[in-house]
Amino acid sequence: MQPLRWQVAVVAAAGLALALETLPTVLRWLWVRRRQRPRREVLFFPSQVTCTEALLRSPGATPSGCPCSLPHGESSLSRLLSALLAARVSLELCLFAFSSPQLGRAVQLLHQRGVRVRVVTDCDYMALNGSQIGLLRKAGIQVRHDQDLGYMHHKFAIVDRRVLITGSLNWTTQAIQNNRENVLIVEDEEYVRLFLEEFERIWEEFDPTRFSFFPQKERAR
Amino acid sequence: MQPLRWQVAVVAAAGLALALETLPTVLRWLWVRRRQRPRREVLFFPSQVTCTEALLRSPGATPSGCPCSLPHGESSLSRLLSALLAARVSLELCLFAFSSPQLGRAVQLLHQRGVRVRVVTDCDYMALNGSQIGLLRKAGIQVRHDQDLGYMHHKFAIVDRRVLITGSLNWTTQAIQNNRENVLIVEDEEYVRLFLEEFERIWEEFDPTRFSFFPQKERAR
Repeated sequence: MQPLRWQVAVVAAAGLALALETLPTVLRWLWVRRRQRPRREVLFFPSQVTCTEALLRSPGATPSGCPCSLPHGESSLSRLLSALLAARVSLELCLFAFSSPQLGRAVQLLHQRGVRVRVVTDCDYMALNGSQIGLLRKAGIQVRHDQDLGYMHHKFAIVDRRVLITGSLNWTTQAIQNNRENVLIVEDEEYVRLFLEEFERIWEEFDPTRFSFFPQKERAR
Repeated sequence: MQPLRWQVAVVAAAGLALALETLPTVLRWLWVRRRQRPRREVLFFPSQVTCTEALLRSPGATPSGCPCSLPHGESSLSRLLSALLAARVSLELCLFAFSSPQLGRAVQLLHQRGVRVRVVTDCDYMALNGSQIGLLRKAGIQVRHDQDLGYMHHKFAIVDRRVLITGSLNWTTQAIQNNRENVLIVEDEEYVRLFLEEFERIWEEFDPTRFSFFPQKERAR
């Protein structure tokens, strides 16, 4: 029996070596496959009102299901929240109006997790009743706003410099629950680069040290 | 010299035959190449104010350059106009607010050229001062609008069921010239299909024969 055992051992070792050799190829193939199918999603609103507690639970909170009477399935809002909450490193937000409590909680959660959050918004809407901007600032998140006559009317987010979220949706409960809206979630290098460039342009321009208050009066001088 | 001429003729004929044989392959290669690089463009606003007369000239108008004092180069608005004016068969518009005279002229021009134009808009904005909706209707273009409490807040166009134009931009001069806005122009089968489905859903739902006026009162009965 000894020679047979020896042969089995040789065959097993050869098989193992072959598996180890092909492992990187297989892993690369899987990675390339994942790369070849970048994230692409289109969300339409109004969104069904669903419970989003499971998504927005702070780490350490009790993991039991929420007992509320809302449906607990997926909705356009829950998919938007998931796309945002995937952030691990950075989140750039460029939003005309931001008053949705759920989206506000998501952004604060990311900030607590150490994600670098930067927000650009419009000065005319940031102080309205129900705006999330004050809460975000209170939580220590950097926010900059325009001082222009025109609106900062973008509604986009960039997650981890990899995924662009953009569309017609202002981040308000009115828009989420009542309006016809669309949001694209797209993992695309070129789009992300162009929108990041736009974000950085606006971020620099809205640097408060550059503000010249009463610009019309300045010009009239 | 006779045999040489004969040889030249044979070589030339063989070359011609080869060229004719490879022509379909070359054409298909060019077509595939074009297919592989579908249109992708990102426009940011505010747009520089440029003269758009050359784009909006009716067929048969004098082709001389416009003598106005505006710059005559490209701008975000002129690129948006070009993308729309490429329509040959159909144009679906789903617009919250539409008051830009240039974009209104472009849509009327397409209608005159026989392009099937359909417009969906929001009832709260369509009758405001400067709205293009009345002019489009007067020109014989089909327009439908909501009767909801929520806004029809989309801002997208579909050109020839092939190119999607979507973003944050309302089609108003205020937005084009003063706001920070973005528009994606994207030739993408999947996006076009999803947005066309959304358009058809809304188009059917906003069919005036289905209107139930005073819906709150109806519900209260």
